[in-house]
Amino acid sequence: MKERALHAISECRHLATMTEEPGRITRRFLTRPVHDVHAHLRDRMVALGMEVRVDAVGNLRGEWAPQNAGKRRLVLGSHIDTVPDAGAFDGVLGVVMALEWVRLAQQDLLPMAIEVIAFSEEEGVRFGVPFIGSRAVAGRFDPTLLALKDGNGISVGDAIRAFGLDPTTVDDARVHADALGFVEIHIEQGPTLEAESRSLAVVSRIVGQTRLSIEFGGQANHAGTTPMHMRRDALAGAAEWITVVEAFASRTEDLTATVGRVLIEPNAGNVIPGKARISLDVRHALDAEREKAVEELLTRGRVIADRRALGFECTRQMNEPAVPMDERLTTYLAHAVEAAGFPARTMASGAGHDAMVMATRLPAAILFLRSPGGISHHPAETVLEEDVEAALHVGRIFLARVASEAGS
Amino acid sequence: MKERALHAISECRHLATMTEEPGRITRRFLTRPVHDVHAHLRDRMVALGMEVRVDAVGNLRGEWAPQNAGKRRLVLGSHIDTVPDAGAFDGVLGVVMALEWVRLAQQDLLPMAIEVIAFSEEEGVRFGVPFIGSRAVAGRFDPTLLALKDGNGISVGDAIRAFGLDPTTVDDARVHADALGFVEIHIEQGPTLEAESRSLAVVSRIVGQTRLSIEFGGQANHAGTTPMHMRRDALAGAAEWITVVEAFASRTEDLTATVGRVLIEPNAGNVIPGKARISLDVRHALDAEREKAVEELLTRGRVIADRRALGFECTRQMNEPAVPMDERLTTYLAHAVEAAGFPARTMASGAGHDAMVMATRLPAAILFLRSPGGISHHPAETVLEEDVEAALHVGRIFLARVASEAGS
Repeated sequence: MKERALHAISECRHLATMTEEPGRITRRFLTRPVHDVHAHLRDRMVALGMEVRVDAVGNLRGEWAPQNAGKRRLVLGSHIDTVPDAGAFDGVLGVVMALEWVRLAQQDLLPMAIEVIAFSEEEGVRFGVPFIGSRAVAGRFDPTLLALKDGNGISVGDAIRAFGLDPTTVDDARVHADALGFVEIHIEQGPTLEAESRSLAVVSRIVGQTRLSIEFGGQANHAGTTPMHMRRDALAGAAEWITVVEAFASRTEDLTATVGRVLIEPNAGNVIPGKARISLDVRHALDAEREKAVEELLTRGRVIADRRALGFECTRQMNEPAVPMDERLTTYLAHAVEAAGFPARTMASGAGHDAMVMATRLPAAILFLRSPGGISHHPAETVLEEDVEAALHVGRIFLARVASEAGS
Repeated sequence: MKERALHAISECRHLATMTEEPGRITRRFLTRPVHDVHAHLRDRMVALGMEVRVDAVGNLRGEWAPQNAGKRRLVLGSHIDTVPDAGAFDGVLGVVMALEWVRLAQQDLLPMAIEVIAFSEEEGVRFGVPFIGSRAVAGRFDPTLLALKDGNGISVGDAIRAFGLDPTTVDDARVHADALGFVEIHIEQGPTLEAESRSLAVVSRIVGQTRLSIEFGGQANHAGTTPMHMRRDALAGAAEWITVVEAFASRTEDLTATVGRVLIEPNAGNVIPGKARISLDVRHALDAEREKAVEELLTRGRVIADRRALGFECTRQMNEPAVPMDERLTTYLAHAVEAAGFPARTMASGAGHDAMVMATRLPAAILFLRSPGGISHHPAETVLEEDVEAALHVGRIFLARVASEAGS
């Protein structure tokens, strides 16, 4: 297994050389280097005896169907697009590992068909909308998405055609009716497993997420001539609230609340800020907890604004409920983790994944690998060889268990 | 006097129609509408029997020298450039009022020469450096300023030549050796006089000013996957400090401390801020108080950063000492204010003015008029007729007092 783990890491590093920008890993939806990634993965799939196709939204799909296969297939996969200046493992590792799991299934002569999907798009970088690949597979691809344009005025439809595909056949991308479930292997993208010195975790659910834009409105004025007690400083109000948001989230279990974006007007050193527009991102595995937190934070924001005679306006930009992973597949994964000799850690995922979209159509599960330093979306993103090896052991046990049911 | 006050306000409103941008008052250094302003003011000066010239940096200068004049002249003036989307009174009022004071001196047959200067530049908008006009008059014009370029690549020297002037004669712009002092009439640009229901104040000094750029350095990370206790959020640290800055300044008499500019990296709603660069503007009439405040605020910033494992870097961008106004001229102005029937309010100016530069060369003083709503640098900027009338009464008394000494 150690040799295969090293091979998988080496495959990810090799695929990372296929990039839009020399010296940085950037691979957006159906850009030129995606042809190279497809060519490389296609070779790997063919070598494994898989039947390969590219669907209408550019997902590369390989099917392994042994003669002794049961009626139902397992679907594995993750995405091959990246954020700008990315690491080598976010997404790609899940595709490479899926092929390794197929190899294990073949070695063990498991009587189960497996489809591996390299999703064309998950990050939402090129068109501002994520999950283009998995939406099509889950049958949730809204055709109006085809008209979305990137920064160069090229639409999703144009990009698909330029890649040599036919966007009118998007319905053919839907996952086969015989699919029994979807499993994604992904890096954690957070520091929790590392802090606990663990290799793996099984994802229980994807957290729900609320994104708000809040505007504190004050009065822009001269920084030198306006005494402190006569100010209506929008930034001072926002800053007070930011400290409240942080303190509140810190003492509320499993809640994250983040102010990541700040826009000040007029944003000049010698002018008291008249407006402060800030973002708030709130996540929790339990929707009721998340909603309670949002209400509490907004109430406190309004109190701060009122005391300071500031305006307080809130726009809700996203309100996504938590998505639970399939209980049965998740239990099988957890048992496999234990059987492989690791503690069966379950955790919520604070980030969205293709499995979240696939879960709307199929039982879905995710296996997390530790992220050293908690780093992702950064060139320093990496994985440990021992964790990859652990995920191979888990796969062998998990696949056997699922295969025993695939014929039914 | 009431009629002259109305006339002065009407003059300011008329000059405001001479603008670079239709519908907004924007008049930067030596742009096209400055020709119109010069033509209008030149007519006014000629009508008053003044001798008019434009010096090498575009200051319009009118000299009134009665036959009975003593040996020394008084210099009056303010600036005719504006910020973008300005009001009608900042600067211009001081020029218009200077001409009204000349008219009063003529009516009273005062034996004193008066020079009125309409400074070409004070706001620093076009070239990023303020006081181009008064620097030349004070003999503090560094010739390297001529090479500074505006947003269109036009240098100060080019702008001067394009206006029909010769920048090599800048030395001739220096104020005459016979000048006994400089007085500027200006709107307060703050809310203090309005809050006290007063018309006028005499400026005791221009506050000293420190401008810093501070960078809190943390670790950018995923807003969903990084638990609260594992974050190094640069913005959260900056926000905590901003609230400390505000609280500290609010309980320190006569201190202003303002964070007006915030730049976050990466400034995305779903990413924990890795860097927060913020400005700090600290002003106080007493240099020792200002310096003590800056040190205290920086110490507290470092404590916050250390506790949060954040970097804290500080760059000092400006450190200007307070500039006291001339005691004798200021006392004369204050006496004139009282003799005119108003309380002799003295206050520090939180903003810089041409008088600050002139004070390096001559005794200088400033008379403030109340700013309704504390508003300036905004189209809503205005003055009250009664306050303008008060400033005319004060001028009459003040000029008589100064004239009685101008022959010595």
